Amino acid sequence: MKRVVSFGELMMRLSPPGSERLFQSPQLRTFFGGSEANVAASLAHLGVRSDYVTRLPANAVGDAALAALRAEGVRTNNVLRGGDRLGIYFVESGADLRALRVVYDRANSGFATMAADALDWEMILHGADWFHVSGITPALGEGPSASALRAVEVARHLGVRVSVDLNYRPALWTGRDPAPVTRELVRGCDVMVGNPGAVAAMLGVRAGEPGNESDGVLRAAAEAVSAELGCKAVALTRREVVSASEHGWSTALYTAATGELHASRHYQVQVVDRVGGGDSFAAALIYATLDGRPAAQALEFATAASALKLTIPGDFNRVTVDEVDAIINRNG
Amino acid sequence: MKRVVSFGELMMRLSPPGSERLFQSPQLRTFFGGSEANVAASLAHLGVRSDYVTRLPANAVGDAALAALRAEGVRTNNVLRGGDRLGIYFVESGADLRALRVVYDRANSGFATMAADALDWEMILHGADWFHVSGITPALGEGPSASALRAVEVARHLGVRVSVDLNYRPALWTGRDPAPVTRELVRGCDVMVGNPGAVAAMLGVRAGEPGNESDGVLRAAAEAVSAELGCKAVALTRREVVSASEHGWSTALYTAATGELHASRHYQVQVVDRVGGGDSFAAALIYATLDGRPAAQALEFATAASALKLTIPGDFNRVTVDEVDAIINRNG
Amino acid sequence: MKRVVSFGELMMRLSPPGSERLFQSPQLRTFFGGSEANVAASLAHLGVRSDYVTRLPANAVGDAALAALRAEGVRTNNVLRGGDRLGIYFVESGADLRALRVVYDRANSGFATMAADALDWEMILHGADWFHVSGITPALGEGPSASALRAVEVARHLGVRVSVDLNYRPALWTGRDPAPVTRELVRGCDVMVGNPGAVAAMLGVRAGEPGNESDGVLRAAAEAVSAELGCKAVALTRREVVSASEHGWSTALYTAATGELHASRHYQVQVVDRVGGGDSFAAALIYATLDGRPAAQALEFATAASALKLTIPGDFNRVTVDEVDAIINRNG
Amino acid sequence: MKRVVSFGELMMRLSPPGSERLFQSPQLRTFFGGSEANVAASLAHLGVRSDYVTRLPANAVGDAALAALRAEGVRTNNVLRGGDRLGIYFVESGADLRALRVVYDRANSGFATMAADALDWEMILHGADWFHVSGITPALGEGPSASALRAVEVARHLGVRVSVDLNYRPALWTGRDPAPVTRELVRGCDVMVGNPGAVAAMLGVRAGEPGNESDGVLRAAAEAVSAELGCKAVALTRREVVSASEHGWSTALYTAATGELHASRHYQVQVVDRVGGGDSFAAALIYATLDGRPAAQALEFATAASALKLTIPGDFNRVTVDEVDAIINRNG
Amino acid sequence: MKRVVSFGELMMRLSPPGSERLFQSPQLRTFFGGSEANVAASLAHLGVRSDYVTRLPANAVGDAALAALRAEGVRTNNVLRGGDRLGIYFVESGADLRALRVVYDRANSGFATMAADALDWEMILHGADWFHVSGITPALGEGPSASALRAVEVARHLGVRVSVDLNYRPALWTGRDPAPVTRELVRGCDVMVGNPGAVAAMLGVRAGEPGNESDGVLRAAAEAVSAELGCKAVALTRREVVSASEHGWSTALYTAATGELHASRHYQVQVVDRVGGGDSFAAALIYATLDGRPAAQALEFATAASALKLTIPGDFNRVTVDEVDAIINRNG
Amino acid sequence: MKRVVSFGELMMRLSPPGSERLFQSPQLRTFFGGSEANVAASLAHLGVRSDYVTRLPANAVGDAALAALRAEGVRTNNVLRGGDRLGIYFVESGADLRALRVVYDRANSGFATMAADALDWEMILHGADWFHVSGITPALGEGPSASALRAVEVARHLGVRVSVDLNYRPALWTGRDPAPVTRELVRGCDVMVGNPGAVAAMLGVRAGEPGNESDGVLRAAAEAVSAELGCKAVALTRREVVSASEHGWSTALYTAATGELHASRHYQVQVVDRVGGGDSFAAALIYATLDGRPAAQALEFATAASALKLTIPGDFNRVTVDEVDAIINRNG
Repeated sequence: MKRVVSFGELMMRLSPPGSERLFQSPQLRTFFGGSEANVAASLAHLGVRSDYVTRLPANAVGDAALAALRAEGVRTNNVLRGGDRLGIYFVESGADLRALRVVYDRANSGFATMAADALDWEMILHGADWFHVSGITPALGEGPSASALRAVEVARHLGVRVSVDLNYRPALWTGRDPAPVTRELVRGCDVMVGNPGAVAAMLGVRAGEPGNESDGVLRAAAEAVSAELGCKAVALTRREVVSASEHGWSTALYTAATGELHASRHYQVQVVDRVGGGDSFAAALIYATLDGRPAAQALEFATAASALKLTIPGDFNRVTVDEVDAIINRNG
Repeated sequence: MKRVVSFGELMMRLSPPGSERLFQSPQLRTFFGGSEANVAASLAHLGVRSDYVTRLPANAVGDAALAALRAEGVRTNNVLRGGDRLGIYFVESGADLRALRVVYDRANSGFATMAADALDWEMILHGADWFHVSGITPALGEGPSASALRAVEVARHLGVRVSVDLNYRPALWTGRDPAPVTRELVRGCDVMVGNPGAVAAMLGVRAGEPGNESDGVLRAAAEAVSAELGCKAVALTRREVVSASEHGWSTALYTAATGELHASRHYQVQVVDRVGGGDSFAAALIYATLDGRPAAQALEFATAASALKLTIPGDFNRVTVDEVDAIINRNG
Repeated sequence: MKRVVSFGELMMRLSPPGSERLFQSPQLRTFFGGSEANVAASLAHLGVRSDYVTRLPANAVGDAALAALRAEGVRTNNVLRGGDRLGIYFVESGADLRALRVVYDRANSGFATMAADALDWEMILHGADWFHVSGITPALGEGPSASALRAVEVARHLGVRVSVDLNYRPALWTGRDPAPVTRELVRGCDVMVGNPGAVAAMLGVRAGEPGNESDGVLRAAAEAVSAELGCKAVALTRREVVSASEHGWSTALYTAATGELHASRHYQVQVVDRVGGGDSFAAALIYATLDGRPAAQALEFATAASALKLTIPGDFNRVTVDEVDAIINRNG
Repeated sequence: MKRVVSFGELMMRLSPPGSERLFQSPQLRTFFGGSEANVAASLAHLGVRSDYVTRLPANAVGDAALAALRAEGVRTNNVLRGGDRLGIYFVESGADLRALRVVYDRANSGFATMAADALDWEMILHGADWFHVSGITPALGEGPSASALRAVEVARHLGVRVSVDLNYRPALWTGRDPAPVTRELVRGCDVMVGNPGAVAAMLGVRAGEPGNESDGVLRAAAEAVSAELGCKAVALTRREVVSASEHGWSTALYTAATGELHASRHYQVQVVDRVGGGDSFAAALIYATLDGRPAAQALEFATAASALKLTIPGDFNRVTVDEVDAIINRNG
Repeated sequence: MKRVVSFGELMMRLSPPGSERLFQSPQLRTFFGGSEANVAASLAHLGVRSDYVTRLPANAVGDAALAALRAEGVRTNNVLRGGDRLGIYFVESGADLRALRVVYDRANSGFATMAADALDWEMILHGADWFHVSGITPALGEGPSASALRAVEVARHLGVRVSVDLNYRPALWTGRDPAPVTRELVRGCDVMVGNPGAVAAMLGVRAGEPGNESDGVLRAAAEAVSAELGCKAVALTRREVVSASEHGWSTALYTAATGELHASRHYQVQVVDRVGGGDSFAAALIYATLDGRPAAQALEFATAASALKLTIPGDFNRVTVDEVDAIINRNG
Repeated sequence: MKRVVSFGELMMRLSPPGSERLFQSPQLRTFFGGSEANVAASLAHLGVRSDYVTRLPANAVGDAALAALRAEGVRTNNVLRGGDRLGIYFVESGADLRALRVVYDRANSGFATMAADALDWEMILHGADWFHVSGITPALGEGPSASALRAVEVARHLGVRVSVDLNYRPALWTGRDPAPVTRELVRGCDVMVGNPGAVAAMLGVRAGEPGNESDGVLRAAAEAVSAELGCKAVALTRREVVSASEHGWSTALYTAATGELHASRHYQVQVVDRVGGGDSFAAALIYATLDGRPAAQALEFATAASALKLTIPGDFNRVTVDEVDAIINRNG
């Protein structure tokens, strides 16, 4: 069984019942999530040995976060405990015209305040097949940033493949240019995941006009990322938000070695929960690549998996390989 | 900050969980609502100083109604307490083919049995900018009817602008002609809100064929109302009930002074809760007018606000000015 | 299988979740109940053929009431449909120091407004073994009162045994003396159920000092009722409300023919739901009497059944004969 | 009032809240259902005297099943009690791309292990107007199979009309050919309900190519069934599963006596709960036929009723005749 | 109507359902609370004009906090909006042996980071009758501390009576001596509320041995506080935690002018929610004092009110004057 | 960290909300539990490396069971997948007079039908410190019985300590004498857990009169078990069921080597959930023994832990070592 390590911040998500507005009822549903944790949970459901690395506070909230990861089948041997709190985000899913609303309360988390040298990446990555991190992690603090860069460095040294999902969150970069650290993180990776807007904002790589996500623009962006930063593959996602309840979803994958750009099937999805769509795409692409599926098939697998995610409550994509393949076959 | 006074009956609404039929589970969700209360709650969320006037029983049910109003930010200084009960209505939202089902149990409420002279309208309307009432109020009893007419009279005297939403409910007028009292209520108002059917049934003003709601028919109805009853503006709503889950929603606004008829953008809405759509339209039109927005812009604001309402559980439109403007800008 | 007919008003009860105050959350749990309906439901669970007679509105609320009765196994062939509404009562159970709070909204129900001759008691009581009614029924309206008296008359004529539970509710008798009609109802019955306070207030039969419920006082009251009104047996209940969460519960049964007064075992109960305790006592006494148990044993059965009721949410005593006998054996 | 008897297995259905995956929350909603029970419940709501015959375990689960049937208005006089357990099925409704998922745990139920001669069909069917059974029943065990065949035989003898819904469930027939027993069950029935695939698999009657459900293919299948097995009418359903949330739904009815094939209106339904659609069709067709509606109208009634079912949570179609007729009129 | 101003931090409280451990289910019940907010809410229910002053973040969480206050009838005109977050605390109520568990996540709240001069106390306290603050407020930050001291100074200047509830929370004072600022806050107040332990820890006033709460020790502590700090009255609470589900509750009130020490009735309470007990005592003591009740009666009122609080879910004491007086009369 | 292996059947438990009767609402709360699984979960919370061995069906129900174990921190590497179903039990907790009610539906589970040689006990127990099994396991089927005996044999061979909890369930042994296999299982174990009744029924070891659980009787039973079967220690539990809501709880531990009998402190517990009390005692005794605590202290730890369990919903004892020690210290 392949082993994938992912590293990032886990948060508690609190959402109102049904399609209510936040705090309309005195009830909140708890979920746990975070970009890399979502990847780790997806991978566990896909049958991969999935190790997740983070830092959780040593209290009942941190215990609950740990239990939630374990319930999904994620391995948590390398989870640190400490710090003052777990970050929280409040999510109102919206409905049709009423857009998704997210209120973040994530500052000063145990993860953001971790020490740069708290993790022994040689030990953690020993024997791993893949390492995954997002562009959110270096934005969260000095410790996470240095640790993520160190992890990528060690992974390269040990021959562990690396993927980076840009995950552009402007609010986390206020007053700072994300490019220097993100370019460092992405340089030489095996797979970079993002969209043209994130490529421009986080890597300083501009290709085509903003808002235009034609295949030509995607190709230009992918080629530029590969050329400038040496990424072996670039995966790009396209989400068309028709409304809070309906999204168009498709992706493309550029392989530097062949210069091929594969464009996926398009899914028009009645959305149950949009959070974690991109993360489930990254996870399924890692799975399918490790499974040896050719690029075009890996892309279809990842796209179907992430379209399916949009129909599942919570951040985690609780689907098996068989369920994803059934989508592909049904629509093939 | 502008101050708007509204007057009418507040009821308790009881609905089953999710998309269940009434009493399929032994659970009911409580809401509070009523045409003018919905207007008052919307206005409070839009940042207006919103005073609501009603009569609630002096028991735990009345206390809960009062708390619900206050939670929305509505001012309740002029709420009377007394009478035997609060009216109740049971609402099953339906789904797709299965239509909305409402069971009313509103007779003999504290509001319906209030005395005609229970309210000192000179005091209540002193310093107000706007007074709003619906055509439901005079149908509920002698006291409410006389009090509503007195309120309109005082408002005119004090220079307070007046709006009336026809809100035609045939069951409340069984065996009676609504025209005499409703015409009196509407006469000379600043804004009348309704639809061609209500205009015909409640004002005895007929224009065009029933069921036809073309712009020409709307204009004819509006012109007739203005000409006969001296209303300065007439707002007309068009709801196309595709199914319990999907409505078309658009509106028009006729301004007597200019003879202009503005037709709004059309919204095709996946409906979460259809109750209170017209009320939220009236509220947002009052807000936008008081805010000094020109007729066409005020209409777009009110239409977007009320389309948004259809996506929110309960009777109240819990949306801010920024949220409504974002809809307009996104779709503009 | 024995057949028992009971007649009275069914209402919808609405209660908040857990130990909350009314309307603290926007959730209500629906129950259905009413003194004679509670008797009917208890009897059905005890395996008796239990016919309940009432009048329910022909709407979704009435349908739900009917479904609730049927689910308990109550026969509803003789339930009339009509009238404007179902009565409602809001129940907050309280906890410890915080007392039970009930808000009634029962006026103008379909039952209260039924016609005096709406029911054909000869047909309904044909072949029945027992008829049960409470002192609430004649308080609710002219129709119910006349119909109840007629039912008792027909029952006597047909040799159907009759029980009456006084169930004194002062609020229903404001400005009226309950004695004339209640004495008429009780006269000659096979079993009267009540407590010394109700005997005084509703029958005008005074024995002993108020507040004193010693065996001597109970005997005096029972003897007086038997002597004055010809009741063959008088059952008296004693509830000591230590707090909303703890009640003492015991009963006594006087048999006119023998002059014996049996006093039951005393139960100290941690109360889950106090509503329907007396009704479940009456039902179990009817069952045990029909089952041929001697007076002392019938009394112990009825007392255990009603103590058990206090531990069950809702108005209905959902317990089997085996469960009641197990209580007696365990404590015997 | 007409009396219809149906016979089959009742199970407990457990479903997660909202659109969650199974066991995502530690909460399950209980429903009860089963092909013939769904027919019986629908008929009760349509105002028919509906008798349901099954065997339920003599424990709290069986008691709950019985209470659920009674709450719907189904008559349960002929329900046997015994056996070890009630079958259970876990249903995840899915959403859009995510398909319905059902996990069965139905083996060794009290019904499956009933004796072949446990029921006195002469007594049960005496005075009945119609008998209904599905093709699931004979698959469940020797006892149910023999009893179902005996019931059909007795029905024919007593002049009770018979309908059979094929309800093909491949998992129940593993390693067995359903044709011998199913052909016996269907032979000479008044109405057979199914679809071309079920006709081929369960009756060995092939007409047209698989997957093709054109009117021509439907007619061919219906004619073959009538010719070979002597069915007087053949009703065929067509469900196009666009996604878990959207189905196309239409039906056709072939009348052997006239050779006419009526095709129903097509409904495109936003699905709330797909379970029980076919059962509600059968029930409404029985009702409309007994009500004397001509074939084309009976078919429209049954199709509208079953389209409406798809919008109702649970297996049972809780709709009245008026509600179904309103759908037809609204769309007519 | 009397007007009371209170000032402090409001937090969101999150609790698991029923008697579960934290995060045992993925559900949390939201409450809002905080020492002075609890006082303000209690006062509003007691019919006092209750103004609460705090600082809430300008986001959906702050909006919900504001709505919760308003729903209780608290006036929020002087609530500031700003800062990064609302403090949160997770409360597991425990049961019997299993003790209450609280996890705080309150650092960096909008209240803690408010500016020292953000509030215009002359304006806010103009016309007020009473000002209340707890010893928690100065522990939370420089701004709250300075503002609280300023409020007390202004109150004295304007003749507004002042109460201070010590509310000792060791975790908030780690590494700091609470005495200097708390003594300043308490000096010259009209009523100080606390217990002997808090008096020792926060005021540096020691009287008697630790753990001993006899009347003599209470008197000694009260006399010392009055003598050293000039408090006109000292109220002391005694809570005996038998288990998480059962508390003993009694209080004493020392009046400096007379030297009298009144000891209250003792309540043994089955606890539903222990949070806010002391706050409800302070609120009811303020109410009863403003109502002109003599010391001994005011103390009994406050003790009954706070015993009642222990039976109510949430932090707020939702009880009326009549309900409290009923407890006194019932037990009197 | 010590490693403990436990082996037995895991079931799904379904319970109604609050204090309701089974199926009173259409809602069930899911838990997972089973005697040895409860031990395994307790040990994981106590910080032990806890390996649980069972067989779960390869479907969504088995997946949920696995996720539930993992969430508690139990290691599931040696869990087999297969068989037809997971056993289910329905639990109504009761209240006061109303006793606990359990309905089992556990036949034909994947565990009961496992093969005798399905598990490689040499591999599983390699490096373990302790093996635990209950007397339920051999009752469930040939495979579990043979596998349990083999596990004990291998454990002895590898020097792994062994504990057996008798857990007498008469319904599982109908028509069979449990003694032969249970004696074999218990022979030579390090700790046997039981009560005098189970010792008599399952081991055929009688000491003292039935129903008498004095220290003398306990000692006699323990000595007999040690003498006859060579158990090194015998732990005996005493539960006095005052009512469904209140239990007395105490234990005793006999050490064969010293002949000492330690009797624990007595706890009088307000019960939240009685299921799993004995299992949590066994788990905590294993923990404390492995932790090197002397017999008397280990017994107090285990008794406090299991008393605490009675206050926690579900079968699992979610408490830490610190929480248990706090109970001991508080009561010490």
